[in-house]
Order: sequence, then C-alpha cells, then structure tokens
Amino acid sequence: MVRVKLIGAGGYGGIGLIEMLLGHPEAEIVGLVNPHGAGGKVSEIWPYLEGYCDMPLIDPESDEAKGIDSDVTFCATPDGVGQYWGPIEVAAGRRFVDYSGDYRFNSTELYSQYATRINKDPVHKAPELLGECVYGLTEFHREEIAKAKIVGNPGCFAMSCTIGLAPAIKYGLVEEGSVICDCKTGISGAGKKPSPGFHYPERYDTANAYRLTGHQHVMEIEHELSLIGGKDVKITFTPQVVPMTRGIMSCLYGKLPEGVGHGRVLEAYKEMYVGERFVMVKDFTEAASTGDVRGSNRVLITVACDERTGIFRVISHIDNLVKGQAGSALQNMNVMFGLREDMGLDRPGAHP
Amino acid sequence: MVRVKLIGAGGYGGIGLIEMLLGHPEAEIVGLVNPHGAGGKVSEIWPYLEGYCDMPLIDPESDEAKGIDSDVTFCATPDGVGQYWGPIEVAAGRRFVDYSGDYRFNSTELYSQYATRINKDPVHKAPELLGECVYGLTEFHREEIAKAKIVGNPGCFAMSCTIGLAPAIKYGLVEEGSVICDCKTGISGAGKKPSPGFHYPERYDTANAYRLTGHQHVMEIEHELSLIGGKDVKITFTPQVVPMTRGIMSCLYGKLPEGVGHGRVLEAYKEMYVGERFVMVKDFTEAASTGDVRGSNRVLITVACDERTGIFRVISHIDNLVKGQAGSALQNMNVMFGLREDMGLDRPGAHP
Amino acid sequence: MVRVKLIGAGGYGGIGLIEMLLGHPEAEIVGLVNPHGAGGKVSEIWPYLEGYCDMPLIDPESDEAKGIDSDVTFCATPDGVGQYWGPIEVAAGRRFVDYSGDYRFNSTELYSQYATRINKDPVHKAPELLGECVYGLTEFHREEIAKAKIVGNPGCFAMSCTIGLAPAIKYGLVEEGSVICDCKTGISGAGKKPSPGFHYPERYDTANAYRLTGHQHVMEIEHELSLIGGKDVKITFTPQVVPMTRGIMSCLYGKLPEGVGHGRVLEAYKEMYVGERFVMVKDFTEAASTGDVRGSNRVLITVACDERTGIFRVISHIDNLVKGQAGSALQNMNVMFGLREDMGLDRPGAHP
Amino acid sequence: MVRVKLIGAGGYGGIGLIEMLLGHPEAEIVGLVNPHGAGGKVSEIWPYLEGYCDMPLIDPESDEAKGIDSDVTFCATPDGVGQYWGPIEVAAGRRFVDYSGDYRFNSTELYSQYATRINKDPVHKAPELLGECVYGLTEFHREEIAKAKIVGNPGCFAMSCTIGLAPAIKYGLVEEGSVICDCKTGISGAGKKPSPGFHYPERYDTANAYRLTGHQHVMEIEHELSLIGGKDVKITFTPQVVPMTRGIMSCLYGKLPEGVGHGRVLEAYKEMYVGERFVMVKDFTEAASTGDVRGSNRVLITVACDERTGIFRVISHIDNLVKGQAGSALQNMNVMFGLREDMGLDRPGAHP
Repeated sequence: MVRVKLIGAGGYGGIGLIEMLLGHPEAEIVGLVNPHGAGGKVSEIWPYLEGYCDMPLIDPESDEAKGIDSDVTFCATPDGVGQYWGPIEVAAGRRFVDYSGDYRFNSTELYSQYATRINKDPVHKAPELLGECVYGLTEFHREEIAKAKIVGNPGCFAMSCTIGLAPAIKYGLVEEGSVICDCKTGISGAGKKPSPGFHYPERYDTANAYRLTGHQHVMEIEHELSLIGGKDVKITFTPQVVPMTRGIMSCLYGKLPEGVGHGRVLEAYKEMYVGERFVMVKDFTEAASTGDVRGSNRVLITVACDERTGIFRVISHIDNLVKGQAGSALQNMNVMFGLREDMGLDRPGAHP
Repeated sequence: MVRVKLIGAGGYGGIGLIEMLLGHPEAEIVGLVNPHGAGGKVSEIWPYLEGYCDMPLIDPESDEAKGIDSDVTFCATPDGVGQYWGPIEVAAGRRFVDYSGDYRFNSTELYSQYATRINKDPVHKAPELLGECVYGLTEFHREEIAKAKIVGNPGCFAMSCTIGLAPAIKYGLVEEGSVICDCKTGISGAGKKPSPGFHYPERYDTANAYRLTGHQHVMEIEHELSLIGGKDVKITFTPQVVPMTRGIMSCLYGKLPEGVGHGRVLEAYKEMYVGERFVMVKDFTEAASTGDVRGSNRVLITVACDERTGIFRVISHIDNLVKGQAGSALQNMNVMFGLREDMGLDRPGAHP
Repeated sequence: MVRVKLIGAGGYGGIGLIEMLLGHPEAEIVGLVNPHGAGGKVSEIWPYLEGYCDMPLIDPESDEAKGIDSDVTFCATPDGVGQYWGPIEVAAGRRFVDYSGDYRFNSTELYSQYATRINKDPVHKAPELLGECVYGLTEFHREEIAKAKIVGNPGCFAMSCTIGLAPAIKYGLVEEGSVICDCKTGISGAGKKPSPGFHYPERYDTANAYRLTGHQHVMEIEHELSLIGGKDVKITFTPQVVPMTRGIMSCLYGKLPEGVGHGRVLEAYKEMYVGERFVMVKDFTEAASTGDVRGSNRVLITVACDERTGIFRVISHIDNLVKGQAGSALQNMNVMFGLREDMGLDRPGAHP
Repeated sequence: MVRVKLIGAGGYGGIGLIEMLLGHPEAEIVGLVNPHGAGGKVSEIWPYLEGYCDMPLIDPESDEAKGIDSDVTFCATPDGVGQYWGPIEVAAGRRFVDYSGDYRFNSTELYSQYATRINKDPVHKAPELLGECVYGLTEFHREEIAKAKIVGNPGCFAMSCTIGLAPAIKYGLVEEGSVICDCKTGISGAGKKPSPGFHYPERYDTANAYRLTGHQHVMEIEHELSLIGGKDVKITFTPQVVPMTRGIMSCLYGKLPEGVGHGRVLEAYKEMYVGERFVMVKDFTEAASTGDVRGSNRVLITVACDERTGIFRVISHIDNLVKGQAGSALQNMNVMFGLREDMGLDRPGAHP
C-alpha cells in the first residue's frame, strides 16, 4: 500500500484526491493537513464525506503535520505553499507531488518569470529542488515521473492545451506564430473561495473572458510545447469562465501549413495518442462535450480543421478537477509507484 | 460473482446502475438490454461510458435478450415493462428487481388503484407473481428481500418520505390525519426524455408544484407507513420541481401529540436508525443540504420540530438517482446475495 | 414628477428600483447614495446600467447625501441604516420608504423583539418615528400608505406568505395553530454579498433549509395575520434556498375546518383579491410557476386544498426582488403620490 | 402609432417582441398570429404575459390572419415561413421584417446556397421580392432600412460577429484568410422546442461545439464583411453552446498586419462606432461579460489584441434574444418609421 499524506486537504483539489483514494486499492491516506478546520474531522468541513472519510485535519503549522510519514506527499495548495513543504518532505525521504506552479519549472529564472505574472515573490524558497523536479504531464514525461522525487503537476488550462496541441507542434501541423487557445472553464477552477464574480446570482447566465493581459498558464504551455517542438512556440490565450461547475473546453486554432489538411491532422493525433488510456481522439462528425468527461480522467479531443479557410482547429475537453488536477496527480502517483496507470481512475463520472 | 442482466440500460436508472456495478467487486454485467441504440454499444448512446463500459445493447424484442442468463435481472424501465419481463426471468430462475410500480403492491386490487392513477391499464399482466414480490425498502424489509424472488424497488419520493416518516408513525410522534409531505425534486427524476417544462431555458430559475390532484407515489407511502404504524395513514403530498439535476429534499410536517417535543422526536429517530449504514439523523443545529448526499446512497435526516407551535418537522435529503433509484436497487441486490450491504456503494459522490 | 432619492443604490434592492424608475413616466431620480463606489458613477459598479443610468453615487457620510432634496426617499439598505436616515429625511419633509425591518413595527417593544432575532441592537434609534410608520403591504394598507410619512416595506418571505394566507385567516378557512409556511427562495434574496453557501460551485444542484430555529420574517407575518384575523396567529416557517436566482414559492398549509372544502377556499381567495392588479388567484388545475412572475410585480396564488385529508393548501409565487422588494416599494410610492398603482410596473419580465 | 402585426408570436422571438412593444410609446400590436395555441390568448400558452398581453392568437392558415392590417408585419418564424407571408403582406402595402434567412440575401443564387446548408428547398418561393430586401443590420444599412419594404433581420451569431469584425475589415486591421470566430451561445438561441441536448439534466454543467462542418450564419457574415471590405472575406466559425439561457460571447481572432498594434485597433473601433447608441467599445483592462448586456439591445465590444504574438483579438457580447433578434428587429422598425432609434429599447435588462 502506498501511504499518502495530503497537504491542503480542504480545498477542491484536496477533496478530489480523497474521493479517488477512497476507491484506490493500493493506496491509503495516512494524514490530512489543512489550516481551516484543523483539530476537527475533514467531514466536519465537508459533510458529504461523513461516513466515508472522517480523518482528522492536522494544523500545517504543527510538528505533527511535519511528522506524518508517507511514501508520497501531495501539496494541493496555492502557489508558494509547496516551497515550504517540498524541502521538509524530500528531506524525510517522501516523494512529493505539488499542484501549484512551485515545481513546474526547472530553473529559478523561469520560476521568477512565472511568479511575477501572478504577483508572487519571484525568489523561489527551495531553489535547490528545482533541478530535480519533473513536469507532471504523465503522457509526455512518464519515464522521468516514474523516478521523480518531485513532480510539479500541470495547471488545468495547461493540461487541456498542451495535450490538445502537442501532436500539431511535434509534427509541424500548424504554422509558427499562429497558435490561439480559446479556453472556456467552469467555475471550480477558481477554487472554493467565494468572490463577487462567482456569487451565484452574478454568475448564472453569464460568460466572460478575463486576464486578457496574460494568464499564468501561458508560460508552462509555451515551455512544454517548445520542448516538444524543439523550437520556440508562442500562443495567444483567452481564458473564459462560463456558468458551469466543472469542465474545460479549449478550442485550439492556427494556420494549416501548405499541404496539410484535416485528414493528415486527424491521423497524426490518432497516431500520437494510440495506447494512451486517458486520451481519446475523435473526428468532428462525432459529438463531444465536457459532459462526456465530467468526473473522469479523460482528455477528449475533437479534430475539426477547416480546409475551406486553411485553419487548423482542435477542441480539447477535460474535467478541470480530474485530469486538470487531482486525477492527473493520482495518475502520476500510480506511475511513480509502478502501479497500473489507471488504478483508482478506471471509472466514469456519474451522469447526469 | 453475481451475474447481472440489466433491462432498460439506456435510461438514467440504467446507466446509474452500470456506473456502480463497474466499481462493485462481486458483480459483473452479463447483458444490457435496451430498445434505443440496440445493435450498438451502450457507449454509443452514452459517450461518457466509452472506455469504461462498451458492452452491446440487445434489442428487448429479440430472443437473445430473453436468453441472457443471470443471477439477478434488473428492470430499470417505465411502469408496465416489468410485467412482461417478470414472468420470463422468474421462470428462468433469475431473481428480479424492478424499478417501477409493477411489483410494489402485493395484490391486484392495490395495483389496479395505482395503475389508474397513472393512466395505465389497471389489469396486471403477471398477477401470479404479486404474492411473491417484496417492497424493496431495504431498511424495513431486509429479511424478506434476502429471500425474495421479486423485489419492487420504491419510488424516489416514496423513499425520501417513508424513511423520513417511519419513526414518527411507528412511535406515534405525529397526530393522525395531519401529515404533510412537501417534496422538492431535481429534474432527473423525470428521466431523460425532453419535454417543454424541462427544456433548459424554461427550467433554469424556475420552480413549480405539479400533479396537485394526486401523485402516484402517495399510494406506496401510505401503504408502507400504514404497515409500520399498524393503522391507516394518510398524507398530503406536494411534489415540486426545482432547477437542479439531482436531489430530493422533503419537508415532512404534522401535529405533535400532546407531550411530545423535539427532543423525544430526535431521540426516536436516532434510535430507530442506529446501525443503519445509509441513514444519518441530525439535529437542526447542524447544516444539511442535498449537496451532502449527491452521488451517495445516503438518506440525511434533519429533525427540526417547532415546539413553539407544536408542529412536527423532519427534513429528508436523498439523491433521487442513487438512494432514490439505482443505489437502493443495488443495496437490495447485495442483501439478496448475502454481500456486505454497502458493497459498490461505499463512496461519496464527487464534490463540487 | 416625483423626485426620488435612493439610499443604498448599489445593492440588488437599489438597482432593481433604478431599473423600474427608468421606465416610470412620473418619477425622476435626483440622487443615488451608496458607500461602495461613492465618487464614481453607479454604472461603474454595475456596468449593465452604463448608457441607461450614469448618475454619480454619493457617499452616505457626506453632507451632500443629506442635502439631496426629494419628494420621497427610499432606503434600500440593511437593517439599522434606515434608523439613521429616517429622522433626517422626515425632518426635511421628505416621505420615506424603508426596505428593512426598521419601520415594520409600530412599537419599540415589537422592534426590540425583532432586532433580537437578527442579533441587532434592540434599542431603536428613532423611536419617535415608530408611531407614524405604516406597514407597506399595499393591498392591505392602501389608505394609510397614501398618507404615510414613513413606510416599512415588507420582507420578501413575508410578502409571499401574508398575501397567500390573508383570506384564509380573515375568513377562518384554516384551523388555529395549524399553519405551516414551507418557503423556497432564490439566492438573490440574500443580497449581492458573496458567501461560501452561495459560491456557484457550492450552490448549483443544491437545496437546503436554514434558520430552522426561527427566521426573522416570522414575526411580521404573524403580526400582520393577527391584525387581519383579529386574534393571535402563529405559524411554523421553513425557509429554504434552491438553486435559482429569483423567485419565492411558498407552500402554505393548515387544517381545513369542519365543513370547509376546496371550493369555498378558492371562492374566498378570488373574492378577496378581485380588482387587485397584482394578485392572481388560480385553481390547481392551472399550471403555475415562479417563472410566470419573474420580473413582474405579481403574486400568483394557486389554491390546492386536499379534501381527501382535510388539508388546506395554497401556493404563493412571487419574484423576491420585485413584489418581494423594489416593485412593492415602487407600488407604495405610486399610492403615496396618487399615481396609477401600476405605473412603472405594468410590464411582464423578459422570458426566458 | 405604428400598427404592428406579428406572425410567430408564440416563439421566443415573438414574445420578446411583444415584451418590448408593450413598453413602446409609438407602437401598438394589432394582431398576433401563431399556429400553436390559435383560438386562445397568447397568455394561455405564455402565462407570464397574463394581465399584460391577453390578445388572441390567430391561426396562420385562416383568412383572418391574412386580413389583419398593419403598418409593419414581423415574421418571427423559422426559415421558409416568411416566403409565404412576404408576398401577402407586401401586396397589402404592409412593410415587412423577417427574422429568418428568407430575406437576408438579394439573389436566388445566394439564397439557394444558404438553403442548401440548412437542408431546405433551395428554390425561393418569392424570388420577385429578393431584389427589394435589405439586410437588417441597422448600424450599417440605416438609410436603406428607412426606405425598405422588406428587411431580412440578421442571425444572432451574425450580428455578434459582423459588428465585432466590421472595423477590422473596413480598415484592414486583420490579415486576409486569418479570421476566426469562436462563438459561445446560450441555449435560447435554439428556440423553445425541447431536444435531448437541451434537456436540463443533459445541459447543466455541459459545454460543446456543434455544426463544425459549417453553420449557416457563416454565409451572411462573409457576405456582409465582404461588402464592407470591398473584397472577399472568409471566416472560420466555431459555434458552441454553454449552459446559460441568454447571451452570445464571440471571440474574434486574426493575424495583425505588420505595423498594426492594439492601440490602432482600439482607436479604429471607437471611431467607427462613435455615436452608435447600441455599440460600446472597451479596452481589455475594463471588465465585460454577457451579463452586462442581458436584456439590453447593446453590443459590448472589448478590444484585446495580443501584441506579443501579433494576434488580433476582439470580444463581442450581445443578448442573443435582444440585439440578436427581437431588439434589432424593433430597432429596424423605429428606423423604418422615422422614430427615435432606441424607442422601446432604452432600458437595461433586470439584474441579477
């Protein structure tokens, strides 16, 4: 049994992992850490867990929290928190998966650029770990993840765009400088903290774009795609919120290079993802929606190039809280411990 | 392994059972029967199941459908269909669980009254089976269900009201003739068939009561409560639809008898349901919502009598598609085959 | 033209009044007062108003705010604020309509009971005005409102329940001590302030009851119904929130007295409300929903007694932000200034 | 007073016009024609109109329907119906506004291409009228509309894209062959007819793209933009449905020509739309959402080019049922009869 310690158990990313671990045959939760509700049970702040998981929440500032031993520790916490926990967990010989941007980049320079975008301190608190961290996009880094001490799990938008664009970049199916990511997310992506824009009466029946001056996920998408393409890739990214709770639908566009048509793109996508348990590629004659991936760890990709205009078009659907967060973190854990990659992830969500 | 045959696999009640069976360690699906989509895979009409369940759908009119052998057959079908299948399955030695009203009553007289209410033929097609059928409210008929050949699973409203009122009726905590059930349901209770009132633009932001002249579930609630109380119980029932997909919240009222107060009611409820895996009783100082049971097989009961006015008040929350339908059907299967009662049902839903 | 001053212009109750005043042929807004956004335009905090109403918001703490002269001043503010403004406006000869509980009761004793329920200071700050204030339920206090200096507008739940029960109480169609109000509200009733329970991902698909120990609107309902009935009336009240933005659906129950049936109740309701522009009475064979009153100042009442069980049942539907708040406030203004009662209120909402 | 006859009064486009005409000081409805509900009142099929508009619905097949005389007749009907009514109304000297694609094109050739896309008979039934019809995008065809006998009102997506792209095309701010329209619509755009994909439980929390092989609105957008640009314009168009009732948010992309930056684009948009009552242009530092236009006839445009990547980006927000349908039809009527262009349209929607 893999012993799992979870820091940030009380947020959406934390409870999502708890839900999946409850059904995982080879993992057991050994400790839940969270500031809010510390001293009580996790089911006191999340009553839906009562009777299913009633473990105590440990105060992150306590020695007890640090002392909880594990085979792997997840930090389902906001940017910055993992920089405090990373050194502690790694020193204790625990493998470490972080949900935030803290360990997505291998250098202090890249981290500093990222941190500046989100108005955080550009100086990383655990720079000595950056050389060892692996970007947790399982489909592209499986072998490194298997051996990794530290995994920086991708952002939800980044997951949807990178998986959706990788074959195009790899096989040169889109012209340089033309890539556009038009991404619609559900509201849970913003976490559980109430805010005016996500107050029910303000959000129902309302869609909007935001952070048009630059969303922080752009950097990791460009970084990862540049690695895949072997040259600099730049994207235009339009994050949008629509009134649903879960789901990301990213419409990915670009210019088709001379001689590349829809058939070639479809073929390349199918080829690149053949054998991938969690990536499905469909032609645009087949229906697809975020509802088809709600509650599952799947990426559903529709290839829909417009040959009339010469425009490359691919649509990527994920559940932002599963493949976009807790599910892919668990997928990484499975890889790290040599388990079947879909263990605990082999079920669809509940419909409707 | 319990071999499961599922008739009506394509409705909400069918796919709900498939979802749960996929995670059940002691059951396997041996055949899916459904008219719509017959000849194709279940995942063709429900793409979210693709990769998780890709079994074929068999035409109910085919010999193949009848021939599928099983240990238990579920009819997740509208009223009437089970009257055709019941005799076939029982004759083949398969145990039988029906979701509709077809086998909820033990006599042709009661069935005839029920059928009249829903404008169906009052003559039961398989009257010889009525003597053997057991009402599938596990908590009250566990022993009979364990031995039953035929189980008539309760209606969703009936589940919420009967569990919510049983202790009051049993212990005389509410005055005769005063019981009111004010029940709010999500829309999935009406099934997957589109209709003007459930068209998204007509339903969002809209609540209404319906069938004020008499809902068909009244009959089974009164019948079951009369058995529990040892005398005739009558209720006033107000079904309402609110704009959510899953969930039933039933506010149950009556007159407190002289000398009965909130404390006595709370105590009686806790006592009656002690040890019940799927029934939780709370005092009204504790928060409760349909969100706390979404995706789980739980009944969450809040006792909230109003001593100032002498009014009995209990609020019952369920997920109409789980404890109100597929979950309780699976719970019955577990009991019928001597399995742990919460097998395949021991996980919370996904939140949010 | 009636000159209107609006304090609390930035909340839902304020902008609702602005919307209606923009279409009112005999009223003009002369000043908007609000702490949030003061110094800027109302359309800066509410961009949907841009181009329709771009008046400045005046700081309530400024002398300018006090100095704005008007024929009528509305306080669309939380409990307590009107106690500060009432004396100022009345002294300046301006008529005064308050949305909160500040002027709903005629005595310091009653106010003190009310304030205690909502954890406010039980000592009224302007006790000298209480003798002059009129309860703003237009249908029952039209003549006093016409002459009133101060109107205390009813709470939204109170509006729905009082109009829904008045004929029953007046004509003795329900037994003493048996009245139950099961009330479902949309979320806008809680105002624009974000909170965990109204965060979109927590609220969609979720219904719950709250304040089961006693909602503050109970007091004014009982007070008003006692006046109408000429004797003490007590009610049991169950406030609930369902995932919609606008609308209240109140199911009102009681015991039918011996000899009183559905027909008599229906007749009494039709009779009492004949000629009322904003009250519609329907029999339960006619469909009704909160959608039918969304955006309008109407109360839609369905009479649906259950003769089989002897239970009185009436369902009352309103838009909590119109007849439940800004609409009824405007209706009162029309009465106060001798205008046609439905001026500015003679249009349905937008559908869907 | 302009006498208005409305054919197709029972759909969303019909009732939307009724709502606005009820508040229009210079128009009066003289006849409502609709097959469903004919013989009864419009408020019988739409109870929210009861007491506000209780006019009878006339059977379109009756002589009475043809005989209703008017100054202007609106056909708020599906494609094809206007081809029957156009000749009748025009022959009777009534001016004619059609909501569908029937009169959006000036030649039988163009119409035939359009009809083929939507699987309709490519032969127009009233070809003699095509030469006289004017495309009803008021902002670009004001003078022709003022004199027009027949106006073909734009499609909702077309409205949002054409207004959003016109300045870019006119002033050459986007490179040829690079234009992409990523359009998210609310569900009311599909009308009132229930369908599986718009059944509430299937649609809540679900987003999807559709008609990826080619939406019919593409043609009129390309046609109109080509006129504006003076050369052939082609677009890639991705229609999507998100779970809201009203609203279209179109993200419009392209390649910025050498030397064109964000500032130039913003300036051109502001310049082109200066003085337009219903078009607002904002910089991307200002918040904008479909909520800001819900219920209003406004187009809210955000200019948000990405200079880092050289991508042109403009976001256009409308209410699909107002500026996208009934509102723009009424705006055209105002122009046709020399009324103030915003008459009956000078109010915001209701918020929230």
